Amino acid sequence: MQLQLRSSSSASALFSAVQVKPPSSPPVRVKALFTKNPGSGTLKNSNSNTNPNPNPMASNPRWAQKTVTLPPLRRGCHLITPKIVKEIAQDLSEFKCGLAHLFLLHTSASLTINENYDSDVRDDTETFLNKIVPELYFVSLLQGRSASWKHTLEGPDDMPAHIKSSMFGCTLTIPITDGQLNMGTWQGIWLCEHRDAPTPRKVVITLNGI
Amino acid sequence: MQLQLRSSSSASALFSAVQVKPPSSPPVRVKALFTKNPGSGTLKNSNSNTNPNPNPMASNPRWAQKTVTLPPLRRGCHLITPKIVKEIAQDLSEFKCGLAHLFLLHTSASLTINENYDSDVRDDTETFLNKIVPELYFVSLLQGRSASWKHTLEGPDDMPAHIKSSMFGCTLTIPITDGQLNMGTWQGIWLCEHRDAPTPRKVVITLNGI
Amino acid sequence: MQLQLRSSSSASALFSAVQVKPPSSPPVRVKALFTKNPGSGTLKNSNSNTNPNPNPMASNPRWAQKTVTLPPLRRGCHLITPKIVKEIAQDLSEFKCGLAHLFLLHTSASLTINENYDSDVRDDTETFLNKIVPELYFVSLLQGRSASWKHTLEGPDDMPAHIKSSMFGCTLTIPITDGQLNMGTWQGIWLCEHRDAPTPRKVVITLNGI
Repeated sequence: MQLQLRSSSSASALFSAVQVKPPSSPPVRVKALFTKNPGSGTLKNSNSNTNPNPNPMASNPRWAQKTVTLPPLRRGCHLITPKIVKEIAQDLSEFKCGLAHLFLLHTSASLTINENYDSDVRDDTETFLNKIVPELYFVSLLQGRSASWKHTLEGPDDMPAHIKSSMFGCTLTIPITDGQLNMGTWQGIWLCEHRDAPTPRKVVITLNGI
Repeated sequence: MQLQLRSSSSASALFSAVQVKPPSSPPVRVKALFTKNPGSGTLKNSNSNTNPNPNPMASNPRWAQKTVTLPPLRRGCHLITPKIVKEIAQDLSEFKCGLAHLFLLHTSASLTINENYDSDVRDDTETFLNKIVPELYFVSLLQGRSASWKHTLEGPDDMPAHIKSSMFGCTLTIPITDGQLNMGTWQGIWLCEHRDAPTPRKVVITLNGI
Repeated sequence: MQLQLRSSSSASALFSAVQVKPPSSPPVRVKALFTKNPGSGTLKNSNSNTNPNPNPMASNPRWAQKTVTLPPLRRGCHLITPKIVKEIAQDLSEFKCGLAHLFLLHTSASLTINENYDSDVRDDTETFLNKIVPELYFVSLLQGRSASWKHTLEGPDDMPAHIKSSMFGCTLTIPITDGQLNMGTWQGIWLCEHRDAPTPRKVVITLNGI
């Protein structure tokens, strides 16, 4: 299942930009509000055509949380948008506006957002990480060769894996708009596996919104 | 418009620290709660002087989302706090407590929080990024000169731009306290443009709170 | 106080994974919902044994925010999970599902998630940061020795500290499940102090959930 990206113009429509309004009329500030009275708590949208029949109950805040296990992947960067979206699509569709939070439960892999098209970008990123976080030696004109790591018990790839994990991070927050992840045309979610031995990786996904 | 920073002492006041209470009295735990009954659901604040007349409706969870387009900026790091705050100030002022989420819809630029005063810090950061993610060659005493990238179709600055984007990230979450972004005295929001050719950049801003 | 980690299996139970259901029966989609009517707004949990008597009020969205001051720490990476959990434990216990957001109010230190067991991992990470962001000179086979920084007024460790802060970031968001931070077995929260002179560091903690 491919993530369907949406244009940012409709995303902007959730409330109108003040500067594009005629200065003589008061700025129409439309935003998602939850109120005690569902009848009056509907989404006020500046582009009413896109939401002809807003459901008042849609403005009730809701939470969903799920732990997803990703299958073992070889060392390197992997596009996982389709897998993630497939896991949460049904719940995602119920959110008009919100945030999707991903949290990787590991310290030797990472989550990042990057290019979703050319796999060379993922390969080059892996090349970069291996150059910048060497497994054995730092070498410099000033200092010559120096041993890199104290923590070597779990193999030469382990300590670099920990560092790469902090460089890219283990957590992402992505906006939800009109039932979909609101990402750019070329953006995708990557899981970067930094260990040599593939292992299943768990991601806690938390959805919050209205 | 300059972001008005607030002291962290009043930020702490949202609920009282348990350890500063006399041990003989029960700890007063004050926090933001939403309840079904607006009359009893007001913010209970340990520092009542700062909120003499709390509006019960202020405790209703609310969401606001907007896509902001930043004008083209030259390659390098740019302070965008005033621009961001100007775009959301009116909505921000209605949140007593919450989170502001920024999501850059691109893979060759990044968002980060760093020093807001001396522009040399931004220049030095750009210098660092260019040193650490070279456009053409990795050179080392061990390996000599080696070609850097497979992904070169979009120019020599493109692949390094992708890597820098994952290093700093495309997403930020900032606390909201008393209607303002709750950042440190020296903190600012930076947009780092990693491409040579300036291009407009879009940021989805999501506000959530009470 | 040690953070008690929970198994991801019970975390998943907040709503059931669609694929593990028999195809003949409709998928039971259970999630945390807030409704206007507390009687019908209780948590519907696929694992009813873990929540025999759900409190309907627990499904009311709530917010808590607090500024924590960490004592001065020497330059390097430090495990602060116990300190953070101690500060928020009482409030955390009231959240069935949610997110904990940490925001460091400084630009020369950072927050990251990494290994919580072997202190060598923290030492090696500090070694890496110092190699990759030198205080005085960049040295390369191609360019020879070149002065590093323009921003030197606050000492040679200041500009590298700013860069390290953006590399690891100053903000973390961690899922809350059943009253606890839902992190992996080996994950811990690190404060990385990048300045030579220890100084107190403030973290704004925002809890949001049901």
